[in-house]
Amino acid sequence: MSIAVDAMGGDQGPDVVVRGALLAAAETGTPVALVGDERAVRTALKGCGEAGPYEIVPCDQVVRMDEPPLKAIRRKPNASIRVAFDLVKEGRADAVVSAGNSGATFAAGLLALGKVGGVDRPALASIFPSRSGEVVLIDVGANVDCRPAHLVQFGVMAQAFATACLGMENPAVGLLSIGEEGDKGNEQVRKAHALLEQSPLNFVGNVEGRDLFTGEVQIIVCDGFVGNVALKVAEGMSGIMAETVEHEITRILPENPDRQMDRAELRRLFKALDHESYGGAPILGINGVGIVCHGNASPRAVKNGVKRAAEYVRDGFREKLALRMAEFDRSPAGCPEAVGH
Amino acid sequence: MSIAVDAMGGDQGPDVVVRGALLAAAETGTPVALVGDERAVRTALKGCGEAGPYEIVPCDQVVRMDEPPLKAIRRKPNASIRVAFDLVKEGRADAVVSAGNSGATFAAGLLALGKVGGVDRPALASIFPSRSGEVVLIDVGANVDCRPAHLVQFGVMAQAFATACLGMENPAVGLLSIGEEGDKGNEQVRKAHALLEQSPLNFVGNVEGRDLFTGEVQIIVCDGFVGNVALKVAEGMSGIMAETVEHEITRILPENPDRQMDRAELRRLFKALDHESYGGAPILGINGVGIVCHGNASPRAVKNGVKRAAEYVRDGFREKLALRMAEFDRSPAGCPEAVGH
Repeated sequence: MSIAVDAMGGDQGPDVVVRGALLAAAETGTPVALVGDERAVRTALKGCGEAGPYEIVPCDQVVRMDEPPLKAIRRKPNASIRVAFDLVKEGRADAVVSAGNSGATFAAGLLALGKVGGVDRPALASIFPSRSGEVVLIDVGANVDCRPAHLVQFGVMAQAFATACLGMENPAVGLLSIGEEGDKGNEQVRKAHALLEQSPLNFVGNVEGRDLFTGEVQIIVCDGFVGNVALKVAEGMSGIMAETVEHEITRILPENPDRQMDRAELRRLFKALDHESYGGAPILGINGVGIVCHGNASPRAVKNGVKRAAEYVRDGFREKLALRMAEFDRSPAGCPEAVGH
Repeated sequence: MSIAVDAMGGDQGPDVVVRGALLAAAETGTPVALVGDERAVRTALKGCGEAGPYEIVPCDQVVRMDEPPLKAIRRKPNASIRVAFDLVKEGRADAVVSAGNSGATFAAGLLALGKVGGVDRPALASIFPSRSGEVVLIDVGANVDCRPAHLVQFGVMAQAFATACLGMENPAVGLLSIGEEGDKGNEQVRKAHALLEQSPLNFVGNVEGRDLFTGEVQIIVCDGFVGNVALKVAEGMSGIMAETVEHEITRILPENPDRQMDRAELRRLFKALDHESYGGAPILGINGVGIVCHGNASPRAVKNGVKRAAEYVRDGFREKLALRMAEFDRSPAGCPEAVGH
């Protein structure tokens, strides 16, 4: 197995990404393919101590964070993110991890690997911590205008993912809305509620934004616009709270040899709450494994993304999703009319 | 001046609400009208120490938290929330504060007081703390399916509010989307972006969920579905972080006389981050002042809601909003065609 890493992606450039990838390779022994400008990658490698197995796959184009994803992907066949997914297509790698332009990562994955049979719209999932285990939110930005039936498919894909990769059995699925009753929400959500009730999913009804953290359901479906807003609100809130607490820690626990330990522990706590351990958002519905890390990912976050990608490959996620989609397609809820073909 | 308080509203019943209302009356000297079941209110009063000026306005109906708002409001003319707004209509009170059913509070306010001229859809605003001052998010749940022009009106109402009541000058207005470029977002948002650009508002373009906490803009507009999800995500995140930190404080700073102070200070900090000081969500666009507190509001949160309501009355918010809407209505962006009449 080998994990292709888009070495050029991310706000902070190759240094952070290469360091994270090598940490994962060192911890797990799984080789990483560092895809990017050879000189930049070699420079980044110099800054890394501990190094696991790696190879460099050189390429000379990059999709910048602010480029329109589709245009950039079409115009730059040699962009690092395209070359990374091509490695998977050619069987030279098993998964892709990128902290670069998330739209471009999604589009490049779809272009190179295509969709799993039965999937209309691949989607981006995000994993939240909660009081009682992980919660999968889907879609967090890939599909901005959705039909109600797409939300049902998101639920099916997330169910396959949670079962195959997160060790969940029959995860409960909730529909993100603004009240628990089935008639609450906007038109799209009310229609999706009716379809989800007829679906083979373990659908428990509407949930609210706070249920990302309660763990009462394990999967929450929504369209990519709402999901992205929710994700960014959570990130923003986590950021300001971490900052405030950092400030207060300094004020309340003054520099004092006795209290260095307290300060270090509280800081570590806030780092953990910053989602880094979750390793990024998996792309569900493409014919392979792809993970989108936060543009601002630290080496530790990239490392966790690479480790998670290797786990998803080992879990046989792609194959299990294909089986699950075929089953769903044969069910009444998955008939073509339901998706509006 | 007098503030009518729905003594029956809230998850925890009259005890909490009455205590909060009396604290506000004691601190400010502004009388409160406690609207609700006389016996329940008198029982709640017994538990209160310090008491400011108050009167009891008895009524014998209540809208429960889980009742469908519109039906309940129509069927219960003597419900505490209706009687509270009737006091304002009759000139016997100047504003209403409720921690009860938020949909019913909104509907009762609209029914009793009507809309400010030029307002199509009154909306619920929420005030977020940020790195650099308050940020107003509008709408947070009153209008679930909106036309793009409604988002522009929300911006105008919030601008009038922020100017009159929050001491802001020419606040910057952002449109909640999932990318900064004007072509990002769903169909509704892309159309609203075009309308906002033509409006007299200080519109700076799209913003993202995290901008609720950055303070780069002072007003963020969105439809009530997206806004409510955003609000609930923020509340949920704040809740889980406060819990985690509370747990860690206990672990890291063990019971120790030297450290009681540290623990108390850290706890206070997390209480503050829990939004209590913001006193609830103002209803913008009705002919009067109404504030919806969180159903789970503490006495301190209710107190702050009552204090804020009195300030908004003193600021002349209703009159200033009416002036602002009349100006906007005469501008090209406010012409009837734009709102789709």
